[in-house]
Amino acid sequence: MNARLESSSVVESAAGLLEGLRAEPPLVQCITNSVVTGFTANVLLALGAAPAMVDITGEAGMFAAISSGLLVNLGTPTPEQRSASIEAVGGACTAGTPWVLDPVAVGALPVRTALAQDLLVRRPTLIRGNASEILALAGRSAGGRGVDALDGTEAAADAARELARSTGGAVAVSGPVDLVVDADHEIRIANGDALLTRVTGGGCALGAAMAAFLGAARQTGDSPAVAAAAATLVYTLAAEDAAARAGGPGSFAVELIDALAAIEPDRIAARARLDVRPVAAAEAVA
Amino acid sequence: MNARLESSSVVESAAGLLEGLRAEPPLVQCITNSVVTGFTANVLLALGAAPAMVDITGEAGMFAAISSGLLVNLGTPTPEQRSASIEAVGGACTAGTPWVLDPVAVGALPVRTALAQDLLVRRPTLIRGNASEILALAGRSAGGRGVDALDGTEAAADAARELARSTGGAVAVSGPVDLVVDADHEIRIANGDALLTRVTGGGCALGAAMAAFLGAARQTGDSPAVAAAAATLVYTLAAEDAAARAGGPGSFAVELIDALAAIEPDRIAARARLDVRPVAAAEAVA
Amino acid sequence: MNARLESSSVVESAAGLLEGLRAEPPLVQCITNSVVTGFTANVLLALGAAPAMVDITGEAGMFAAISSGLLVNLGTPTPEQRSASIEAVGGACTAGTPWVLDPVAVGALPVRTALAQDLLVRRPTLIRGNASEILALAGRSAGGRGVDALDGTEAAADAARELARSTGGAVAVSGPVDLVVDADHEIRIANGDALLTRVTGGGCALGAAMAAFLGAARQTGDSPAVAAAAATLVYTLAAEDAAARAGGPGSFAVELIDALAAIEPDRIAARARLDVRPVAAAEAVA
Repeated sequence: MNARLESSSVVESAAGLLEGLRAEPPLVQCITNSVVTGFTANVLLALGAAPAMVDITGEAGMFAAISSGLLVNLGTPTPEQRSASIEAVGGACTAGTPWVLDPVAVGALPVRTALAQDLLVRRPTLIRGNASEILALAGRSAGGRGVDALDGTEAAADAARELARSTGGAVAVSGPVDLVVDADHEIRIANGDALLTRVTGGGCALGAAMAAFLGAARQTGDSPAVAAAAATLVYTLAAEDAAARAGGPGSFAVELIDALAAIEPDRIAARARLDVRPVAAAEAVA
Repeated sequence: MNARLESSSVVESAAGLLEGLRAEPPLVQCITNSVVTGFTANVLLALGAAPAMVDITGEAGMFAAISSGLLVNLGTPTPEQRSASIEAVGGACTAGTPWVLDPVAVGALPVRTALAQDLLVRRPTLIRGNASEILALAGRSAGGRGVDALDGTEAAADAARELARSTGGAVAVSGPVDLVVDADHEIRIANGDALLTRVTGGGCALGAAMAAFLGAARQTGDSPAVAAAAATLVYTLAAEDAAARAGGPGSFAVELIDALAAIEPDRIAARARLDVRPVAAAEAVA
Repeated sequence: MNARLESSSVVESAAGLLEGLRAEPPLVQCITNSVVTGFTANVLLALGAAPAMVDITGEAGMFAAISSGLLVNLGTPTPEQRSASIEAVGGACTAGTPWVLDPVAVGALPVRTALAQDLLVRRPTLIRGNASEILALAGRSAGGRGVDALDGTEAAADAARELARSTGGAVAVSGPVDLVVDADHEIRIANGDALLTRVTGGGCALGAAMAAFLGAARQTGDSPAVAAAAATLVYTLAAEDAAARAGGPGSFAVELIDALAAIEPDRIAARARLDVRPVAAAEAVA
């Protein structure tokens, strides 16, 4: 078991990772759905990262090997993207590039569910989804009807721990309280705003932000769970700033980009609503 | 012939459908063009609907069967999307899911024109296009050069009536005065703002909104024509609100999303510029 | 050698082309990457042009023949888009439609690099890229790691001149100072704002704007280099207006669309920071 984490150290890591990311922009390869490409790229640029949507076969694998982080989001998995995803994950695994699997709407839909299972055995560094998706990926439900979270975050806590154990990585469950688990710890982040669920890509772009933080964490040695929690914290704090200025979901999306670019690392700690607990020994073994 | 509609009852239906849609979000499957995916999803989310871009074969048909409404927009019809469209419409027809055909730029361009004809015989619940597209789909002109409306709405009234008769559904023609026809009625809506034509997806997203209202109408029993008119009315009123606050087409697109989220059902009636007429017996038979 | 250009005449052409474009909207066909489609279309609409994303085989070639200008951007070149690009360029060349090649991330990535070389021998009217891409396309470096400009604009001046000579067209290099070259002249534009690099599609949409200006130049007889410089000038002046009002990259993107729609042709001259030089005889011959 790793050294026990404290909330304060996760918050400190968030500030450090954001600073590091801005100082040395990680190259983040995104294979993502056709709805959120532009918003995702703008979120990454606002954070300070360098997005690249390299999602064709013959390029995806070699690019993953030189990227700082990779996102594979299954929202609109065309045949070309499915092949490119397998190729990219192969390149990432060989080169040691951390990668995020976002299993959008798995469970009910067979094509992406089969692909998600193929990718799962390649052991993603991080899995990010809503509770329905995490439950479905762990084989515990038939999945959601899309990107809506029909189940509360805590309902997926067991499934998340199970996936974390089987992959050896971390699992992030998005919801009103975000949950990040790995073999050793559970981190909960209670920041954010409901407007994030009224904007398309609100969750998908967080997956890309996590890939960027995983890239930055290669310099600091922070664990995937800490990187995922740090990305969540920065993103949800920016969402709070945006919501305070927005007149609705349209202006919220614009303000979120501005807020991500403006957020100051040394202002994170005072606002973080973050809780860290060790996984109980029994749970860790079970 | 159905009971004769009054303008006031259409306006009342618009308020009721919007309330119903917000209370029980319809799941709206969109197979749409790569330019407008994000904007379309944000329009649906702002209205209160749940968008899902399921546009690959092996998933599109089964998803259409569980969706509340389906949009098939032919703006950028890749081979995969063409196959998925046929599959989705098959699923929708079998399950009774109402579906919208948006025949973007048919007429001059052969691939989408052939697909549109294939889909037309499957009898869309609603067809939405500009006058050029409706004329071309009815075989009355060579079509437009894209999504511009080169013909006035009324120029396509005969073509719209003809399509409505042959499909048994409704047809909506977008323009400065929007026209919705079915076998029994013609509805004209004079709300809106010219900025809608300066934003990409202004018309395409309206097609998605119509699919959402068709989904909500399954609860109320409103006809497809009434649902289409209701969607048009809510959308064009929001456009008026947005135009009043916008400094140009960029901020208009943002304000439109905010306005769609904010529009109050009980404020619709006072602002509606809506006219309903029965189709003359001679026209109905011809 | 053409008649010697003066800065004042290029600035005058910019105003004239913008007026012409608004009076008679050029139809601009875009084959572009999945990240920037919506933003690109909105930039074209704001300028006054008519965008059309016709990027499938069986339609791309015939559409290029009736378009005013064509953009081929290699950002996410799926197999279908690669075939459509070849077809579209064939149609453009046969019909005399001016076309822009934007070789996004060529050099390091083999699929797009091979396609770029195939397209290059078809002699694009205009090539637009950042310095890394222009260097890579000319075979002088291994290319960038994406759309970042890792090299300064002047570092690519020789490569740009070489490409201009081999294609007989113009080459535009984007950077803090934009450079446009053809066989006879070098034009430098020092307007703009760094926020353009913080928004996805900031460069890609400029390529589309150039295609629109090339379309308008068919009426005026302005050279491709002048059309490219004019597009750059209008676009970077709008970026300055937008930056003055923006609170970050999110609002900048919105304000840029508004500013493009609002820019007045007769206000361009006073703000232009534009320099024109003849290519030295030795360079022109070498």
